[in-house]
Amino acid sequence: MPLQFTSEPRLDDGVLERPFALDEIPGFLWTPASASASRPAPLILLGPPPLGLGRAYPRLAARARNAAAQGFATATLELPGSGDRPRRPAAEQARAGLRRALEAGEPVSDEIIDALVLPLVEEAVPEWRAALDALLPLPGIGGPAGYSGGVISIGIRLAAVEPRIAAAALFAGSLVPRALFEEARRVTVPLHVLLQWDDEGNDRQAALDLFDAFGSEEKSLHANMGGHTGVPRFADDAALAFFSRHLPRSSAGV
Amino acid sequence: MPLQFTSEPRLDDGVLERPFALDEIPGFLWTPASASASRPAPLILLGPPPLGLGRAYPRLAARARNAAAQGFATATLELPGSGDRPRRPAAEQARAGLRRALEAGEPVSDEIIDALVLPLVEEAVPEWRAALDALLPLPGIGGPAGYSGGVISIGIRLAAVEPRIAAAALFAGSLVPRALFEEARRVTVPLHVLLQWDDEGNDRQAALDLFDAFGSEEKSLHANMGGHTGVPRFADDAALAFFSRHLPRSSAGV
Repeated sequence: MPLQFTSEPRLDDGVLERPFALDEIPGFLWTPASASASRPAPLILLGPPPLGLGRAYPRLAARARNAAAQGFATATLELPGSGDRPRRPAAEQARAGLRRALEAGEPVSDEIIDALVLPLVEEAVPEWRAALDALLPLPGIGGPAGYSGGVISIGIRLAAVEPRIAAAALFAGSLVPRALFEEARRVTVPLHVLLQWDDEGNDRQAALDLFDAFGSEEKSLHANMGGHTGVPRFADDAALAFFSRHLPRSSAGV
Repeated sequence: MPLQFTSEPRLDDGVLERPFALDEIPGFLWTPASASASRPAPLILLGPPPLGLGRAYPRLAARARNAAAQGFATATLELPGSGDRPRRPAAEQARAGLRRALEAGEPVSDEIIDALVLPLVEEAVPEWRAALDALLPLPGIGGPAGYSGGVISIGIRLAAVEPRIAAAALFAGSLVPRALFEEARRVTVPLHVLLQWDDEGNDRQAALDLFDAFGSEEKSLHANMGGHTGVPRFADDAALAFFSRHLPRSSAGV
């Protein structure tokens, strides 16, 4: 898919922000101003929450600035069905089912989780791989790449199937279909898993079981206090320390 | 208790190592060579494993060097019944009971855990508090202090009762008496809990329950792959980042 920068780059605090469209999908690329063709910055894909990039922008841009301060380029992409992208009727229906179950205090059925998440994974993962195709050849961007945050099921599939993802920091904060537990066993790259201990929308035991399922020889679970949106700043720093260990700074782009 | 330095200080790699005796209890103090009365280094107490300081020395000295590189002083103390200190017959008997249970593949009874750990905590905690009395007034040493590693039950009690401990990094790697779970609820200082996910001598669920029990508003669990002795180097770095956030560098000693 062709990538086009859609507006003027903006330099803020040593970070170059470039909005782009990948085919029709909006996204952002952030690079440290110091990155160049001869000193490319390793790339971390920032998975957004399914809120739309508009609402998620402040938090994503803050993560991008932290990452740039450690020498990383970052990029994000609107998820299927989020922001201004066409709504997916099946997903809307599943979301209504989820809401009903939560309001009734009932357990969320595997059917609802599968309907909500599996089509999203199916659609999103090829888009993120296309983003890698388009971003990694840019001057100043290095590979291999990392994936960080967002919808964990997308991260699992991407880490399992995409050889250019060399390390992943995943946020155990969403409903994970049974099928993805099986895919988790096939993930072998170093993993850094973040868990909010009191996450109201997340089953803690399921998150621990998922962590246990990953096939990676190096995996770390970082559990911090607070709810879904209460991730402490030092958790970002720990994830960046993880990427600094695993994304080598190449002397030329890939 | 009086503290006496027992041999010449040794300067190695920018770290000053000073063996001492607190009353009759052997210990080590490590300080960054750069620490001075006008620039005191915050102190981290390094809890040793119950192996004796002789056998534990290489690992403790490595942790001390890493800590010194981040500007911290560290100190350790021989545990009651370890090294050349008099054996405690009741503990030896409990240890034999533990060994029999493990060999028979039976669960370790609360009675054995209590007999093994409670008297050790009773005896050790006043010694570590006396070590703080003796170490904190030394020129070049700052307070408040941290506690890191070792027998977790000692760390729980110390964090619960000693106001000069401002932050603790605990290693979920030993048998914890029920009574200490209750004391854990009274701990309020920031905590960094390390768990080896495949620790053969440690019940993972009990470790997660203990983490849940701590009363601290800021607590983080870092679980890494590997057995009891396989703690990765980056886990030390993460614990030091935790202490850097919580042990302020005072401009004069306390």
